[in-house]
Amino acid sequence: MTFGSDILAQAEALSKFTEDAPRLTRTYLTPQHRAAGDFIRNLMREARMAADYDALGNVVGRYDASMPGAPDLITGSHMDSVRNAGKYDGLFGILSAIACVKDLARRGLRLPCNIEVVAFGDEEGVRFGSTLLGSRAMAGSFDPAWLERKDPRGITLRKALADFGCDPDGWRALDRRGQEVAAYIESHIEQGPVLLEEGLPVGVVTSIAGASRVRVTVTGLAGHAGTVPMGIRRDALTAASEMILAIESHCRSRAGLVGTVGKIEALPGAVNVIPQDVSFTIDLRSGTDAPREAAVEAVHVTLDAIAARRGVKLAWEQYFDSQAAPCNAALQAQLAQSIMRQGIKVRRLASGAGHDAMVFPPVCPTAMLFVRCGNGGISHHPDESLTAEDADIATRVLLDFLEHFVPA
Amino acid sequence: MTFGSDILAQAEALSKFTEDAPRLTRTYLTPQHRAAGDFIRNLMREARMAADYDALGNVVGRYDASMPGAPDLITGSHMDSVRNAGKYDGLFGILSAIACVKDLARRGLRLPCNIEVVAFGDEEGVRFGSTLLGSRAMAGSFDPAWLERKDPRGITLRKALADFGCDPDGWRALDRRGQEVAAYIESHIEQGPVLLEEGLPVGVVTSIAGASRVRVTVTGLAGHAGTVPMGIRRDALTAASEMILAIESHCRSRAGLVGTVGKIEALPGAVNVIPQDVSFTIDLRSGTDAPREAAVEAVHVTLDAIAARRGVKLAWEQYFDSQAAPCNAALQAQLAQSIMRQGIKVRRLASGAGHDAMVFPPVCPTAMLFVRCGNGGISHHPDESLTAEDADIATRVLLDFLEHFVPA
Repeated sequence: MTFGSDILAQAEALSKFTEDAPRLTRTYLTPQHRAAGDFIRNLMREARMAADYDALGNVVGRYDASMPGAPDLITGSHMDSVRNAGKYDGLFGILSAIACVKDLARRGLRLPCNIEVVAFGDEEGVRFGSTLLGSRAMAGSFDPAWLERKDPRGITLRKALADFGCDPDGWRALDRRGQEVAAYIESHIEQGPVLLEEGLPVGVVTSIAGASRVRVTVTGLAGHAGTVPMGIRRDALTAASEMILAIESHCRSRAGLVGTVGKIEALPGAVNVIPQDVSFTIDLRSGTDAPREAAVEAVHVTLDAIAARRGVKLAWEQYFDSQAAPCNAALQAQLAQSIMRQGIKVRRLASGAGHDAMVFPPVCPTAMLFVRCGNGGISHHPDESLTAEDADIATRVLLDFLEHFVPA
Repeated sequence: MTFGSDILAQAEALSKFTEDAPRLTRTYLTPQHRAAGDFIRNLMREARMAADYDALGNVVGRYDASMPGAPDLITGSHMDSVRNAGKYDGLFGILSAIACVKDLARRGLRLPCNIEVVAFGDEEGVRFGSTLLGSRAMAGSFDPAWLERKDPRGITLRKALADFGCDPDGWRALDRRGQEVAAYIESHIEQGPVLLEEGLPVGVVTSIAGASRVRVTVTGLAGHAGTVPMGIRRDALTAASEMILAIESHCRSRAGLVGTVGKIEALPGAVNVIPQDVSFTIDLRSGTDAPREAAVEAVHVTLDAIAARRGVKLAWEQYFDSQAAPCNAALQAQLAQSIMRQGIKVRRLASGAGHDAMVFPPVCPTAMLFVRCGNGGISHHPDESLTAEDADIATRVLLDFLEHFVPA
């Protein structure tokens, strides 16, 4: 089989549809979106699917079931990208799904479900600041207020959709809740190093992690670096450092929980002045909600105690909170069976990053297959890598899953 | 006596000579320097001193000794300021010295030394980026290369001096080394909280701390905040946090040593990305050189160990190093006597900040008197404060010192 090399060649071709070559950036409702969508629609049609754009610019291909009235099985991912992206984030899930259907078609095989492959126009949210626009419409959580959102040039989503030839008010009809949808399955590069570290090409996603984000501000007292004795300082940066280590320590001691301080600023920011104001962000994630919610609580208590002991003031602003989206247990089991049938050890892992799959639970049971990410697991970066061999294995697993699929 | 209230009124008047009212900023060789210099020259003349600008724009007043051929005793401080300064940094040392001479003159008293009061035109170095320009000329460490330095508008020091009516090449004649200078004594606000914390109006400076400055860069590995497990992260910011706490801990456990991380930057600086590159500065100071040099060494070793354990790379660049300038022991003793004669407990303390006094040892024995700084010891800030009572006490101490002075 040549799934892997075909997919890598297709991803290479798609990487040319970029807004800022030689970098790869492809945002929603742009000429590059059109070029990628046309390319994908063409691949779908070559795989004998009925394929076209929907009202929001998603490209949807359908491969009918063996008999009429069968339920739908949706698979796919997104075709937009972050700025300066890699070639496989999102696209792999589309291209591997098309490859499966192409193989079924080549063998003249129809399945008990209609296979619907979707290339979502927007998942990353780069242009309008709202993520998952395509999948949210299908999952019934599209907010029409988003239509009035503007991109950095002042163009509303409504106008951009109309200019693209879409129907801005057509989102309502895309809602698949209450319809006969048997499952949503998405294959995706891991965007992390777990499979790479363990020497495995694929893994079963147990859930998509929920995330909590907090903005912390520590206010101490500025002072001359030479004249204020250590014992009476109220240094906002040493306090913040102790807090950052406490967050790390809390997350290290709890499996599946990750915590990151990604941004920090210390003011006034002079070599010879004790920092007075330090602000930093906390990002806490876990595959299940309870450990994350407990961590938010525990970290807050710990940071308050550090602040009190050091005589600095703490301001705590939790500004973002998303629930974990567990993958369906029966579908996980079927995916595990497909992996085992390829002779590969089954590794279950949570997804720390968000995906289109996370919004589908109101429609149907969901599942995700991860494929190994090279280069230390780097993603959202030109160094993102995927081998043809891994792409091949993951596609064979997906195909096996589709052929053996039993509604959960 | 009304030393205190007079000095505060004079400092208030001088604060109006500013480049950016309502803030107080007065840099070298500006119209505001001229206005402040004229005001000070006038005060000196009212105190029956022969007073005028020297070749570098310092204002020098002389009050002759009781007999010809007597040695000189120099006292004073600087009349320039940082940006958005307080009213007393530098000026107090000039105004208190003039107040002493005025009182001597009122009483018709001449001393065994000529009293020379100097208002240095530049100590802070704001305009040309070279500190202590005035005092370095008198101490024989003026570097003529500085004459070609440019201010932010491209004006050289040479041109600015000429435009001010000074003699750019006159620095050589200001050198007082090898002349009959018996002592340099400077009174100054503490710019720190030690006297305030201890409830004392004045203190004897033991030395002006040396300082070492280091630029540290920690390089880890960026990664997605959700997808990289805690156990395999190489987070540059948690590593830097551990380093910052180690610096604090080292300095806390050693009396007289202070260490400050005043600047920090973490890149890429996104809420959902593990920091890859963190750079920060270290400022280490001590009243004596050995503990500071040992601290530089020990902190470097500790930081290397933290970096190795965490799998991050450490770059260490020591970019500044100044030796401590000890004050003369005999002069410290005389100053202590003067303080005791005012019925005040003698507190000896090092100066963490630099002062004109630090460059005088090649000329003569030096001494410094600190006066209590209000508002938690804040300086280089509009909130810098000094009470009339403390100004009065410090001036009486200085006057007592001058009247009882015996060459060391």
